[in-house]
Amino acid sequence: ACGGSPTMAHNIDEVEEITAMSQGLVLNIGTLGNELAAMIAAGKKANELGHPVVLDPVAVGASELRTEACRRLEREVQLSVIRGNVSEIKAIATGSGSTKGVDADQLDAITEDTIEKVVDKVKHLSDQTGAVIAVSGAIDLVVDSQKAYIIRNGHPMMARITGTGCMLTSLIGAFCGANPNHILDAAAAAVCAMGVCGELAYQKTIQADGGTLSFRTYLIDSMSKLTIEQLNGGMKLEVR
Amino acid sequence: ACGGSPTMAHNIDEVEEITAMSQGLVLNIGTLGNELAAMIAAGKKANELGHPVVLDPVAVGASELRTEACRRLEREVQLSVIRGNVSEIKAIATGSGSTKGVDADQLDAITEDTIEKVVDKVKHLSDQTGAVIAVSGAIDLVVDSQKAYIIRNGHPMMARITGTGCMLTSLIGAFCGANPNHILDAAAAAVCAMGVCGELAYQKTIQADGGTLSFRTYLIDSMSKLTIEQLNGGMKLEVR
Amino acid sequence: ACGGSPTMAHNIDEVEEITAMSQGLVLNIGTLGNELAAMIAAGKKANELGHPVVLDPVAVGASELRTEACRRLEREVQLSVIRGNVSEIKAIATGSGSTKGVDADQLDAITEDTIEKVVDKVKHLSDQTGAVIAVSGAIDLVVDSQKAYIIRNGHPMMARITGTGCMLTSLIGAFCGANPNHILDAAAAAVCAMGVCGELAYQKTIQADGGTLSFRTYLIDSMSKLTIEQLNGGMKLEVR
Repeated sequence: ACGGSPTMAHNIDEVEEITAMSQGLVLNIGTLGNELAAMIAAGKKANELGHPVVLDPVAVGASELRTEACRRLEREVQLSVIRGNVSEIKAIATGSGSTKGVDADQLDAITEDTIEKVVDKVKHLSDQTGAVIAVSGAIDLVVDSQKAYIIRNGHPMMARITGTGCMLTSLIGAFCGANPNHILDAAAAAVCAMGVCGELAYQKTIQADGGTLSFRTYLIDSMSKLTIEQLNGGMKLEVR
Repeated sequence: ACGGSPTMAHNIDEVEEITAMSQGLVLNIGTLGNELAAMIAAGKKANELGHPVVLDPVAVGASELRTEACRRLEREVQLSVIRGNVSEIKAIATGSGSTKGVDADQLDAITEDTIEKVVDKVKHLSDQTGAVIAVSGAIDLVVDSQKAYIIRNGHPMMARITGTGCMLTSLIGAFCGANPNHILDAAAAAVCAMGVCGELAYQKTIQADGGTLSFRTYLIDSMSKLTIEQLNGGMKLEVR
Repeated sequence: ACGGSPTMAHNIDEVEEITAMSQGLVLNIGTLGNELAAMIAAGKKANELGHPVVLDPVAVGASELRTEACRRLEREVQLSVIRGNVSEIKAIATGSGSTKGVDADQLDAITEDTIEKVVDKVKHLSDQTGAVIAVSGAIDLVVDSQKAYIIRNGHPMMARITGTGCMLTSLIGAFCGANPNHILDAAAAAVCAMGVCGELAYQKTIQADGGTLSFRTYLIDSMSKLTIEQLNGGMKLEVR
């Protein structure tokens, strides 16, 4: 919908070739089988070619398998962006967590009161990993070791459909693939775009008296039609 | 859409941990690769924790692989609910069948004439397996060894989209996970909810001059917005 | 949406049984793991039973794995139809290619100027493989060794959603399964039907002020409601 041309490949015998013809790599552990070695091979190839690598550590902290997979990916691949909900990012930072399956634990939610402290911790994690960290939730953060974007776009209905996190990660992958020299800004733009589209989709859902699947349709519709005016006019971005 | 928070996991190295943090387990053999051992491990863990286990024996009877997989799951896991179309349930009961791929054989269809006899057989199957049996079709049955709910909700268009059976099984999983001490009633409520949403979705599809994918959108929309008044007012439930 | 009843199976232990109860077989290498042996087994079974076999060589030429998989499928299975974009068909014909992931390379695009030459080459490929070749793009071709249908239906928006190629291949599989003695005409009818539905869907998308996912919804809606009058009245078919 955003103009990317994705190819899904998980076979270790081809991931390096597929990576080589792509502009960016997205690694997603959502339904991890035995693809870890292929992910690492693809990641190393992307590193070698200077392509951005975006990791979605889905439900890390919910099982040792996922936690260990993320540890290995961090260790063996230079990640450009890690995008997760706050529980997933916490699990990445601490090596364990209270991840509630694929959804964030409510106890971890970022509020205006806790945001300062969370930003500091996330900057530290970015410093440790060398990756931009994107934390999504009611308030989104996109952070490197120096700078934090705080983004207040989006709508709660985005949490009621399956896969918004994965969509956002892929969007970040597309934006970073198109702007490999501005990873922090590209990731922040993707998060803003997703949030603005969530707001547009919510309005359209209400008008159409629709439910969650109509919302999802309008979300992707909005992305496919997003204009620079809508994005610039709609985004609520604070820098700290 | 119904408010559940699903996590899909099939790796034997994590299914017990994922099961432990969940409230219910759905096993679906729709595209069975080599996940049977993981399904059994997850099932045993759910049994140990007292979580409901719902089986969708997709296309059982269509191949020896599927028939044998269901036999093993029945033998090694205490199932709370088995949800299938009438051909699948027949295959479970007899150990063989005339399953037409993932759809029911028309010869097996439950009619007002055959319903009495089918209910008796299904009660017997429930007695044998210890599981509530949910048979879906034009007329739905939700049965344990003592009691049968006959449900006359739904719309034929539900059979024209892919995955309504799997959706219903997952819905039963969510309802049973929320009501682990009332499996029969929870499963019947899920079947009623699905049927009522099918009727609402059909009305909306006609109004919008839509086709099968609009119908699917409205089906899930309806579920996401279903009120207790719509459910209680719309359900056509007979007890035998 | 077109009335078929698909079963997805990839386990080598059941593909022959599932093939035997089906009327046609579709092989798709889109996310090739280790399913090649199962594809070959299913293909041989379909050959034995006289069922049509349709291959979608997704992104062939993009990796040696995919190129070699297609070579083996061609060698070991008698294919009825091969359906790809022009870069994929070129890669099949030459054994290598400039496939841009799952999308066609713009340099390969068929235009009114190049069409004559392309038709000759595709007729030659059909002669070599014994399969009807369906090439999709702005202009579609459906060709055997003697005859070429040139089809000018469809809309550019079809290239903006993921999976239109795979949908078309499955549609060809359904049409050929229903008309196993008229493979060329069945494949051409499927391509026309897809194109006409693309045009209907585009009109509806504009009316609804929708984006790419609404377009996809209307595409499948249109297929589920397509009448013989719409198809015959709308198709733009030239024979060479």
